[in-house]
Amino acid sequence: MDYQLELQRAVDAARPVLGTGRVADYIPALGAADPTAFGLALATVDGQVYGAGDWQVPFSVQSISKLFSLALALATGGEQVWHRVGREPSGTPFNSLVQLESEQGIPRNPFLNSGAVVVTDLLLTLTGDAGHAVREFLRAESGNPRLDTDPQVAASEAAHGHRNAALAHFIASYGNLENPVEAVLAHYYAHCAIAASCRDLALAGLFLARHGIRADGSRLLSRSDAKRINAVLLTCGTYDAAGDFAFRVGLPGKSGVGGGILAVVPGRGTLCAWGPALDRAGNSVGAVTALDAFTTATGWSVF
Amino acid sequence: MDYQLELQRAVDAARPVLGTGRVADYIPALGAADPTAFGLALATVDGQVYGAGDWQVPFSVQSISKLFSLALALATGGEQVWHRVGREPSGTPFNSLVQLESEQGIPRNPFLNSGAVVVTDLLLTLTGDAGHAVREFLRAESGNPRLDTDPQVAASEAAHGHRNAALAHFIASYGNLENPVEAVLAHYYAHCAIAASCRDLALAGLFLARHGIRADGSRLLSRSDAKRINAVLLTCGTYDAAGDFAFRVGLPGKSGVGGGILAVVPGRGTLCAWGPALDRAGNSVGAVTALDAFTTATGWSVF
Amino acid sequence: MDYQLELQRAVDAARPVLGTGRVADYIPALGAADPTAFGLALATVDGQVYGAGDWQVPFSVQSISKLFSLALALATGGEQVWHRVGREPSGTPFNSLVQLESEQGIPRNPFLNSGAVVVTDLLLTLTGDAGHAVREFLRAESGNPRLDTDPQVAASEAAHGHRNAALAHFIASYGNLENPVEAVLAHYYAHCAIAASCRDLALAGLFLARHGIRADGSRLLSRSDAKRINAVLLTCGTYDAAGDFAFRVGLPGKSGVGGGILAVVPGRGTLCAWGPALDRAGNSVGAVTALDAFTTATGWSVF
Amino acid sequence: MDYQLELQRAVDAARPVLGTGRVADYIPALGAADPTAFGLALATVDGQVYGAGDWQVPFSVQSISKLFSLALALATGGEQVWHRVGREPSGTPFNSLVQLESEQGIPRNPFLNSGAVVVTDLLLTLTGDAGHAVREFLRAESGNPRLDTDPQVAASEAAHGHRNAALAHFIASYGNLENPVEAVLAHYYAHCAIAASCRDLALAGLFLARHGIRADGSRLLSRSDAKRINAVLLTCGTYDAAGDFAFRVGLPGKSGVGGGILAVVPGRGTLCAWGPALDRAGNSVGAVTALDAFTTATGWSVF
Repeated sequence: MDYQLELQRAVDAARPVLGTGRVADYIPALGAADPTAFGLALATVDGQVYGAGDWQVPFSVQSISKLFSLALALATGGEQVWHRVGREPSGTPFNSLVQLESEQGIPRNPFLNSGAVVVTDLLLTLTGDAGHAVREFLRAESGNPRLDTDPQVAASEAAHGHRNAALAHFIASYGNLENPVEAVLAHYYAHCAIAASCRDLALAGLFLARHGIRADGSRLLSRSDAKRINAVLLTCGTYDAAGDFAFRVGLPGKSGVGGGILAVVPGRGTLCAWGPALDRAGNSVGAVTALDAFTTATGWSVF
Repeated sequence: MDYQLELQRAVDAARPVLGTGRVADYIPALGAADPTAFGLALATVDGQVYGAGDWQVPFSVQSISKLFSLALALATGGEQVWHRVGREPSGTPFNSLVQLESEQGIPRNPFLNSGAVVVTDLLLTLTGDAGHAVREFLRAESGNPRLDTDPQVAASEAAHGHRNAALAHFIASYGNLENPVEAVLAHYYAHCAIAASCRDLALAGLFLARHGIRADGSRLLSRSDAKRINAVLLTCGTYDAAGDFAFRVGLPGKSGVGGGILAVVPGRGTLCAWGPALDRAGNSVGAVTALDAFTTATGWSVF
Repeated sequence: MDYQLELQRAVDAARPVLGTGRVADYIPALGAADPTAFGLALATVDGQVYGAGDWQVPFSVQSISKLFSLALALATGGEQVWHRVGREPSGTPFNSLVQLESEQGIPRNPFLNSGAVVVTDLLLTLTGDAGHAVREFLRAESGNPRLDTDPQVAASEAAHGHRNAALAHFIASYGNLENPVEAVLAHYYAHCAIAASCRDLALAGLFLARHGIRADGSRLLSRSDAKRINAVLLTCGTYDAAGDFAFRVGLPGKSGVGGGILAVVPGRGTLCAWGPALDRAGNSVGAVTALDAFTTATGWSVF
Repeated sequence: MDYQLELQRAVDAARPVLGTGRVADYIPALGAADPTAFGLALATVDGQVYGAGDWQVPFSVQSISKLFSLALALATGGEQVWHRVGREPSGTPFNSLVQLESEQGIPRNPFLNSGAVVVTDLLLTLTGDAGHAVREFLRAESGNPRLDTDPQVAASEAAHGHRNAALAHFIASYGNLENPVEAVLAHYYAHCAIAASCRDLALAGLFLARHGIRADGSRLLSRSDAKRINAVLLTCGTYDAAGDFAFRVGLPGKSGVGGGILAVVPGRGTLCAWGPALDRAGNSVGAVTALDAFTTATGWSVF
């Protein structure tokens, strides 16, 4: 297969929809993104990386970082994460507080904001610096030492973070936070505000396509845990549109409101697409379209 | 791989949990099932079938029939089914009316009772006899001409069917039923009350492992539609425990309160496990355990 | 006080808003009502009755009948009604199924559709004919022997009654109906479809202003039970706008989607206003306005 | 009527239930209250005050302060409070976040925690010191200059206040707070943590029985606004048991988790009962029982 050609075709397929949807503007720093920017990268399990469009332009990873914080919490702390967060699709928006109330402070899954706050709290306890841990992991896997948190975005998140503060205090009221709310949120914003490119993220996610093996050949996660993260990605990784994403793209994936989506093709590689304009569920219109086109053309799907 | 050996090992793995959980008793006919019965069958894409335990004993397929009614509605009516039912996990129990109210009579997915009632209504419109259509399909694929609806179970469902009648009238109040409530429910019960064995169901589900091709080599569904059904199975097929099933078993699957679970290994085959005692979500404790053991041992997983 | 003058002033106050709101059209028979019709009647505890506007024109009482079925169920069956229905405001629309699910088939209060279905079921068990019982009571209290159920409206309700059928089956699924769903609904429609005028209803409600005493001087309810019905009217009688109605009008009252509102001034009398156009909560815009004007002018309020 | 005798009889009626229910223990300072303490006071519109039991013992007023902050916000700022908070019963627990989400940050009524936080925010904007304003008002009306906030209770509330912090941040995320979350909560705790006796509170609430007139004869609220507060008290003042309180006691009232309930008999006077053990809804078991007994014996009820 000519990967470069397929990537270019998928980018071309996304072009017509790039005007559709809406750039996230809940913080000013995100609202400034160019809605017509678009990139797509493919990293294969042997560590090769290919790209088309703006695949080397850094963007705000936002919720894609939740995948890495979960992997690191599992790698460091083992099963305990599943005592504090579930792994079921929520059927509700990513920042909803409703289920948290009926389920007594145990978030439905680690990819809701509430779940990611709990995972960040655990990672903070385990490592002493959750933001640093995620950042270092992304640098190591991508081989990009300049990859970093955008301090302006992190500050902007904190300044406009009443909803996340509400979630965190609510979880704390049920006794499901170990660290002070302010500290947990600071680390949560630190990893959400990391800027990385499609290239960086595709490389950083390869351990999930390699059944747990990192770029340097060491094992981060057991084969079983790597599969399990893929399962949670597929059922919960793209907000309350996970069913539709599975239906159209057929791969485990994690999206962020910065417009990126990182998808895993177990045993083959990873794809990362980026376009800032989002659909109603918060997923990039262009990225879903490109991934749909790519998987349809290549037959790459877990189904 | 010695399939027979692996099946036997998986059955053995399930034995210790067969006393756990609770046999569905909302209708007397189901409540009489033996909680220690257990069977497991494997059908491979070449049409071979293997089994262990009570794999040839018929049981009430219940919600597993929803998978076949969906496939037939798609095969016969095409995309229109997606105008009347969604494909997102619900995050709520299979017989809940709550979301239906906020979503104006459009069921969240075709595997909720509400969604299956809508699919049955469509299939009734398309074929004139939805119960017959499902039954004939199962007979043809399994090669078992004696496979039939258990009239006692169907009558019992109808007699204890206030909850489903509520769902159907509720959907009708939003204009999302074409046929009379009573007719739709009769056909719904007709396919849910089919009695079939693990062997029969594994063979009947093979078209999903064969990317749309039936036992006789004809095409039921496009490759794309077959994949899509697998995607919906994975995200929505095992009630509000779909996340956990994906996490543990890692395969698309559909469960029924009769204790059966039919799982698909795309490109390889199908597995059907059966044990009547259910967990809180309504999935067979023994069947989940056996499928978990089998997929762990064989490495068969979509992730 | 010149009652006639005050009634006329209140009707005049309502005139400007009679174009506002929307006539109920969920059944054709109601949709034909003239949105500019308006009437107001006052019955005093000594049995005198005064009126202005279209106060002698019959209209469909709809949910106002729930007040009478509750009073008769209490008078005939005593406290048992409170074992099957609550007395708390619901905070949700009158035909919602949501709370019924979380509260296991016990309706929040007797003035929700669900609650009134349960009360009708009880009254059917107690009297053998719930529709007849309500009708006879209204005839006796109003002294109007021609007051009757409108068969066309009752038939129309049944024909468009999927939502109520859903409620009734749902309640039955929790074991909170004693009679067949169809029978209960037939009696429910029979009393909702009674046609009566402001005059008739004001007279029929006087027992609540007289602390339980009927027109003929006999006691229907204990003083305590009459007060209690007034309390439930105030907190639950005007759908999910009960708070606003108490705030503006300050009287116990029951509204119907036919456009009527019957309000009680304990120890003094009853008011019945009617105008077909409804606000979003289902209360008559004109009737609320007239009652607000009347109580503001007269100082009649329980507060 | 021999008020003293009736008060004593009501206290006696409450004695047998004083062991029932549970003292609020979400903060240590409240958990230390003696569950067998009990007091009842009556203040008449002429300013006389009567009492029985522990009617002069100060207790933590908690949510009863919400009544005073609402009255002061209305007196100072007029109708604007109703742009930021509703006046409907919620049908949900006092500290629930669920409705706030579906209703976009507008609390259902001013007596929910969320509503009281918004009222406190408004009062803070209007007066510069909401805690001080409530305290001074209570001192003036009760004639008790030593009445004060218990700093230990206020500190304890803040230290255990994750749930309220969640509510406040959630409201702020919808733009319905004008002041910083921390400041609003500090003032909220300052007025909730006021310690006052049944005597103090009965006197302080008299303006509602006097249709808006303060102890010194000046007018705090218009007659209409005083009635309206009584209406909101009746429909929303006793958490999600407002219907039952109206049913049993038949008076507008406000309860607090400190065990107090202040009830208004319009035109006659006020009653304040106190017993620390609470029922499931958060209302004092003893206080409801005593008020029920008193109103039954005296016939004092708005219905």
